[in-house]
Amino acid sequence: MKQEALIAFNQLLDPCSVISDKNELLKYTQACIPVDTTIQAAIKPKTTKEVQSIVLIAAKYGLSLYPISTGQNWGYGSANPVRKDNIIVDLSMMNKIIEVNKTLAYAVIQPGVTQEQLYQYLEKENCGLMMDPTGSGPSCSVLGNTLERGYGITPYGDHFDVMSGMEIVLANGEILNTGFGHFKNSKVTRLFKYGTGPYLDGIFTQSNFGIVTSIGIWLMPKPEYFETCYFSTKEEDGLKDLVESTRWLLLNRIVKGSINLMHRDRILTLMIQYPWDEMKGKKPPLKEDIAKRIAEKKDIGAWNGVVSLYGTKEEVKAAKKVIRRVLKNKCYRLNFVSDNLLKLVERFEWAVTPIGKVMGMDVKELIKVLRPSFDLMKGKPSEISLPTPYWRMKKPIPKKNINPAKDNCGLFWIAPVVPMEIESTKDFIATVKPIFTQHGFETCITFTAVTHRAFDCTLPLLYDKDDATETESALKCYHQVVSACIEKGYIPYRFGIQSMEDLVKGKDVFWDVAAGIKNTLDPKGIISPGRYSRY
Amino acid sequence: MKQEALIAFNQLLDPCSVISDKNELLKYTQACIPVDTTIQAAIKPKTTKEVQSIVLIAAKYGLSLYPISTGQNWGYGSANPVRKDNIIVDLSMMNKIIEVNKTLAYAVIQPGVTQEQLYQYLEKENCGLMMDPTGSGPSCSVLGNTLERGYGITPYGDHFDVMSGMEIVLANGEILNTGFGHFKNSKVTRLFKYGTGPYLDGIFTQSNFGIVTSIGIWLMPKPEYFETCYFSTKEEDGLKDLVESTRWLLLNRIVKGSINLMHRDRILTLMIQYPWDEMKGKKPPLKEDIAKRIAEKKDIGAWNGVVSLYGTKEEVKAAKKVIRRVLKNKCYRLNFVSDNLLKLVERFEWAVTPIGKVMGMDVKELIKVLRPSFDLMKGKPSEISLPTPYWRMKKPIPKKNINPAKDNCGLFWIAPVVPMEIESTKDFIATVKPIFTQHGFETCITFTAVTHRAFDCTLPLLYDKDDATETESALKCYHQVVSACIEKGYIPYRFGIQSMEDLVKGKDVFWDVAAGIKNTLDPKGIISPGRYSRY
Repeated sequence: MKQEALIAFNQLLDPCSVISDKNELLKYTQACIPVDTTIQAAIKPKTTKEVQSIVLIAAKYGLSLYPISTGQNWGYGSANPVRKDNIIVDLSMMNKIIEVNKTLAYAVIQPGVTQEQLYQYLEKENCGLMMDPTGSGPSCSVLGNTLERGYGITPYGDHFDVMSGMEIVLANGEILNTGFGHFKNSKVTRLFKYGTGPYLDGIFTQSNFGIVTSIGIWLMPKPEYFETCYFSTKEEDGLKDLVESTRWLLLNRIVKGSINLMHRDRILTLMIQYPWDEMKGKKPPLKEDIAKRIAEKKDIGAWNGVVSLYGTKEEVKAAKKVIRRVLKNKCYRLNFVSDNLLKLVERFEWAVTPIGKVMGMDVKELIKVLRPSFDLMKGKPSEISLPTPYWRMKKPIPKKNINPAKDNCGLFWIAPVVPMEIESTKDFIATVKPIFTQHGFETCITFTAVTHRAFDCTLPLLYDKDDATETESALKCYHQVVSACIEKGYIPYRFGIQSMEDLVKGKDVFWDVAAGIKNTLDPKGIISPGRYSRY
Repeated sequence: MKQEALIAFNQLLDPCSVISDKNELLKYTQACIPVDTTIQAAIKPKTTKEVQSIVLIAAKYGLSLYPISTGQNWGYGSANPVRKDNIIVDLSMMNKIIEVNKTLAYAVIQPGVTQEQLYQYLEKENCGLMMDPTGSGPSCSVLGNTLERGYGITPYGDHFDVMSGMEIVLANGEILNTGFGHFKNSKVTRLFKYGTGPYLDGIFTQSNFGIVTSIGIWLMPKPEYFETCYFSTKEEDGLKDLVESTRWLLLNRIVKGSINLMHRDRILTLMIQYPWDEMKGKKPPLKEDIAKRIAEKKDIGAWNGVVSLYGTKEEVKAAKKVIRRVLKNKCYRLNFVSDNLLKLVERFEWAVTPIGKVMGMDVKELIKVLRPSFDLMKGKPSEISLPTPYWRMKKPIPKKNINPAKDNCGLFWIAPVVPMEIESTKDFIATVKPIFTQHGFETCITFTAVTHRAFDCTLPLLYDKDDATETESALKCYHQVVSACIEKGYIPYRFGIQSMEDLVKGKDVFWDVAAGIKNTLDPKGIISPGRYSRY
């Protein structure tokens, strides 16, 4: 970076907010995927005004900026820029909860606001409102996830869908307020998201057209009553019934949130690490008979569903009745867990543990998984999904503040969208599984209903990042799986930085149009060059 | 229009698809608002390929095109272009239902597909699926309404929200497929709308960036059970309770569709025409005591709510229980109407009519209104809302094929968004009502829940378009109401062509950005110049 630019940043921000020391910068290049990122510096603005000045300085000195919220886009590149020599604009210090409206049930937040922070705030204020947390953990940014169009599994799970109004710093330093936000006296910016005229918000998600400095998000009133339903099939083949039932339950709005269908192997990665002992030190992948044995001991089915019910007591009762009817004879297990039941089990663990032992279940361990998954669906962020990246590590998983990037875990997320019907679902599995197996990796499938008509398959590719050969295999496997998915029509809804160049290459009117918009809004290519974009 | 251009169009299209005869063109300039439109010609392509050729011809000869679907944007300008001397691109002959997927519950449709056509198709195919009809009537375009971000009141009421994937002819003649649609083999274009990379669809609604030639829309499975709930308050002041209850019922998802709260005067416009006789030929507006007397006779409350319940029998039962609890002591009437009850009343009309007479109700007339409103909420398009524009006419309302533009009815739609809480709602009424009254018009308010946090107030300004003085008053009233709403922060979600120039004028980053995008996608300003746009 030019010395003048560094001086300009130092004049603008306080000294500890401009980081150019190589060691200090290391944390921004930590990642779960192999990267060879070089970054020039990191700067940490505290206000929208500072962000405006930053883009003007960047324009003046021909710099590339790479804004991150908290930079924890694990398995997709974390904080790493797509191209070399960017300056990280670390927005984590812009962490104000600007407004919470209890009556109309929304919040306005800055990029640095974490899931845990928002959760704690809502609890402390006793608003009667809840957020939708993703599985990405307490320390992740709510805004960052929204801009990537991430999702959770409560009724407010589609984060972009529940966003109303954005404040965006454009590459020319101006501020764009979307929706009704640009009407001086608007009372409805957070209540109706489309505004009037072109609905612009979508183009500022999964893109590089501006720096988003705040958004409005809708919050969900805590339901009067809540229960979670867990169900499992003994056989792989049971998936057929689960897929068809899931679609029926969603299309008919019996279920207001999402439904998750998890393969046995995916659950194993949540509960244990790769069983090096049982595998007698043998190289992965996990053998089928050992996987089966462990799963049986832990009472994990071939496919395992989870769905939460939110509503009045009467409603939940009515929904339970329908779910029982729909899933009858399709599962070997169908359990409803209420707050009271879970509390009871926790309280009398000493009593249920021996019973569990007789039944071959480790109740203590079950509760360890059940409680955070249960709470997650009630809006409490948890680290329950974070052990997965540690699957192939030989050192133990940290007890808390889990950070897979910092710990150099090997993880690629692949997230193809799959039609919610059995033929496609089967064809999809038949497409990806052989590639995973061929390269020596487990196929840890979760199907999450992202719409009433489609699953997103969150598919972690787990590898040992300390092993260079395995890392190379993983990268090959990743690209083959993604290509096969695109070829077959199961397109990922989101991509890691390692895929961005492939994504936008070739003749394609869609990327032409996107490039045209980029060129209009950021002709010098200041912001996140190459991120979901040719420029 | 240059002779060469006309020749080019005539070479491209069959002769009867190029209209330049002044008399034949008249139907495009019919409108419920005063207009002084001049159009050069109308052309009626049958295929996307023809649309592509049309934009290239327009580019060559410097023409402005104004695409319409069926052109029935009544009260907002109908088919009339914003600026002079456009060529209407009438897409009504592109009326193919390209695909209906019964399993995954969606359709792909062209611009000319009407509500009635889609309804009939779904009924004939016996799909078990329903559409969400707007009140705009059977002959209106589904796609056209979606592009204006119109809405209905079933659970699929937000038409833009249930759209997945667009095909758009750009000003350079290329075809843009949005969402996943540009991936060659995509199996998920109609199942997950965002695609990957910037979500572009929003910018092609309420704008002039391209010509949309098809869209995917989600269809709703017909519910196992259905009931409609009608409730009314005696006093104007009862609105407070209704607003707070509405918000609670929606935020807590007791109600899956929308809730409508209609003022007495709005209902009068649906049931009768201006009572010239009772008013003894006196000039409008309607006197309070006469309005009251008629309303009492027809058993219309001061505020009247309607909400529909969709679900299994158990669910609807559970929801009814909650609704009864929430509205208890807040309404003088709270009736649930099921299919069976309505059929019974219709069948034994001869028996209930005398009973109704005793109770002061005209059951025959009640059924006349109840049946189509009931069916509308079950997905059957109807003309039930179409009498409103005839309010001040002295000739009777046509029995069917109602077309207010053709009949020269006087109607401006004003559609401000209002926070769903009582203080704002009251303030809103206090803002608009005096202006209506001052100019001699009735304030016919409906509050429709367009989100769980906001009402859209559909506010028809009804006037006698054959009366030049009244038309002038209406125009003045319209502009004053719109200005007052914007000033107070109740911004309309949609505008008529008469407001477009005002809307985009002045320094505003939002309209700068929109203009930038327009300039990129349509640098010659071929498509719908001035529509929600500076260019």
